[in-house]
Amino acid sequence: MLMKVAVIRKEHFNAAHRLHNKDWSEEKNHKVFGKCNNPNFHGHNYELFVKLIGDADPKTGYVYDMKLLSDIIKEEIIAPFDHHNLNIDIAEFKELNPTAENIARVIWDKLRGRIDKKFDLKITLYETERNIVEYPGT
Amino acid sequence: MLMKVAVIRKEHFNAAHRLHNKDWSEEKNHKVFGKCNNPNFHGHNYELFVKLIGDADPKTGYVYDMKLLSDIIKEEIIAPFDHHNLNIDIAEFKELNPTAENIARVIWDKLRGRIDKKFDLKITLYETERNIVEYPGT
Amino acid sequence: MLMKVAVIRKEHFNAAHRLHNKDWSEEKNHKVFGKCNNPNFHGHNYELFVKLIGDADPKTGYVYDMKLLSDIIKEEIIAPFDHHNLNIDIAEFKELNPTAENIARVIWDKLRGRIDKKFDLKITLYETERNIVEYPGT
Amino acid sequence: MLMKVAVIRKEHFNAAHRLHNKDWSEEKNHKVFGKCNNPNFHGHNYELFVKLIGDADPKTGYVYDMKLLSDIIKEEIIAPFDHHNLNIDIAEFKELNPTAENIARVIWDKLRGRIDKKFDLKITLYETERNIVEYPGT
Amino acid sequence: MLMKVAVIRKEHFNAAHRLHNKDWSEEKNHKVFGKCNNPNFHGHNYELFVKLIGDADPKTGYVYDMKLLSDIIKEEIIAPFDHHNLNIDIAEFKELNPTAENIARVIWDKLRGRIDKKFDLKITLYETERNIVEYPGT
Amino acid sequence: MLMKVAVIRKEHFNAAHRLHNKDWSEEKNHKVFGKCNNPNFHGHNYELFVKLIGDADPKTGYVYDMKLLSDIIKEEIIAPFDHHNLNIDIAEFKELNPTAENIARVIWDKLRGRIDKKFDLKITLYETERNIVEYPGT
Repeated sequence: MLMKVAVIRKEHFNAAHRLHNKDWSEEKNHKVFGKCNNPNFHGHNYELFVKLIGDADPKTGYVYDMKLLSDIIKEEIIAPFDHHNLNIDIAEFKELNPTAENIARVIWDKLRGRIDKKFDLKITLYETERNIVEYPGT
Repeated sequence: MLMKVAVIRKEHFNAAHRLHNKDWSEEKNHKVFGKCNNPNFHGHNYELFVKLIGDADPKTGYVYDMKLLSDIIKEEIIAPFDHHNLNIDIAEFKELNPTAENIARVIWDKLRGRIDKKFDLKITLYETERNIVEYPGT
Repeated sequence: MLMKVAVIRKEHFNAAHRLHNKDWSEEKNHKVFGKCNNPNFHGHNYELFVKLIGDADPKTGYVYDMKLLSDIIKEEIIAPFDHHNLNIDIAEFKELNPTAENIARVIWDKLRGRIDKKFDLKITLYETERNIVEYPGT
Repeated sequence: MLMKVAVIRKEHFNAAHRLHNKDWSEEKNHKVFGKCNNPNFHGHNYELFVKLIGDADPKTGYVYDMKLLSDIIKEEIIAPFDHHNLNIDIAEFKELNPTAENIARVIWDKLRGRIDKKFDLKITLYETERNIVEYPGT
Repeated sequence: MLMKVAVIRKEHFNAAHRLHNKDWSEEKNHKVFGKCNNPNFHGHNYELFVKLIGDADPKTGYVYDMKLLSDIIKEEIIAPFDHHNLNIDIAEFKELNPTAENIARVIWDKLRGRIDKKFDLKITLYETERNIVEYPGT
Repeated sequence: MLMKVAVIRKEHFNAAHRLHNKDWSEEKNHKVFGKCNNPNFHGHNYELFVKLIGDADPKTGYVYDMKLLSDIIKEEIIAPFDHHNLNIDIAEFKELNPTAENIARVIWDKLRGRIDKKFDLKITLYETERNIVEYPGT
């Protein structure tokens, strides 16, 4: 009998961002996003947890090779995001507000294309130790 | 398409409590609750995680304004609980034993009245880093 | 009305292990398990979270006596595993590769026999702060 | 050549307390100590770090047997303080205000009598993760 | 007899920055500062520890009122730095490279003017959980 | 004026070890080292903090390039120690008992040869979150 197990890999990246809706006035942006709307940006140490749920392979005892998972996350997420400005440097956020919710969705989309569909994929993102989002995908 | 996302806000409070069932003898209370039954109270730094699950608003990218969520938690929970004695100072625990399980339930009840029903609400409470409860509500 | 609540107890143990499939060549073992295949072993500080889900008893406010849960975990898991070599000292890993996935399954099996079936039982195991597994049982 | 090394053991205790100066009016107590003056007490999970500085024994490689240090701390500090009310249950705080500063001093005094004078002794106490004191002794 | 004790208050701020020496070519800046030189900025969750060393007041048992210390840090450091761009929004970093070392020095200078000279003042700043600086002042 | 600042880099490695004095009987080894003497080894996730104290360079604002420090630590310590057995795989511990005190001393000796003497060098090593050593060098 195979066992369903979740494996979770933690990685991190440091990035600048600001929250802004270009269809709104500066006044409304400031009212809705407060200090997160600062036009000169602020930033965070994002802590990223990537969870895969699947069967453990009886020959290896692995659900997934964690070294491979780490390499995929580094290639798809850490390399482009780390030490960058999410609003300016990342194509996905040219039109999409880089809230933690949207960053988690973009990360899920990027990783979904690299992880076999037989594994469920879930993202948890700590923007700070007090603000956290979880995205279980679609 | 809207995306279901969970947002989690962490807050904390420091409180005294004791575990006690007033329908039981001192002997039985001591046997069941051990050192937690000390009549002079002990206390904890409680770490509280409040999770809301809902759709992210396409205009803001927010499931919920985390500043507003923090304000609601502070008003409903932190202000009355922090630096207080749960057994003596909090009406809900005059008749209800302030175990972590019951504290989580009382917190859920207090917040449920303030959070729109379209959001699922879940509570995680760390009494210590080794004793944790999760309450997903009713 | 009873409330469904999860209670979680955290314990830890320090152990040596290596990853190895005795049906494979040294070459294949090295290719699949990399530095985790070192024949002289390496080790970890394992952080173990045991979650029970059940009804809170109206008389105690407890889902489960956390002192009793801690004692069961210490007796079943910490005493045999802590400061031991999983591959050599633990019978379950004579034939089973001690990956985090398999360690979590063995822990679940050992505890399931001690915890009343009316409680759901789930295991989370941190091998390092970056590699984590969750096993919800069968 | 012997090497000077510090060894640090972490332990914890959960306790209730209040801050109060019995020579002052209630008004002045409230003004100086604010919510920490609540007559019904509040509490904390105290994290205690005990540091000994000395020479490593060439035969053992130990500055001090950490199991022995842990036993001494448990006997002198954890047993009397844990799950107690510092103001009521601990003789040293009948006349002394149990601020983190004074708790650290009392802990230092209690341990100094048990630890050979050839070792320097220093105490660090976390009252919360945001309020910390260090007492290097006299 | 008065006792010398250190009290430490932890606060945090989230900010954007880049490392850059305006007297150098882009090439040299990139060579020295690597990805930290990204012209579009990146950011961090800075964790700040402010330590005061002094005598505990026999009447209060306090070295310093931690509420007052927190208020001073929030007024001098958190309010101007949090959710800002250090290079653009903070006057001190118009000419000074906002390395962790220099941020710690600027924080020390700002706080030194508000804390009585009878207290020693030391700053510890976590830029990430892996990069930390300590500044004991002049 | 130059400023003296400490910079600290955190790295980690996972290793197996046992405590043993080959000049002693098994009986005495077991009595002194207890479960740490298990002949089949146990292991830890070691957390290593390397502190350099020096002047910040006015042109860079750096005491030391943290990328370079990380590379040196990885080359000298992490590469040989990580996923290895300290007693068997590391030459320094063939004759030296790999207590945390001695591991810290060996790390200091290895790094001292790579770090310019104008910087003070100090090592902090977490064997577990409860057992910590600090070695300030000779």
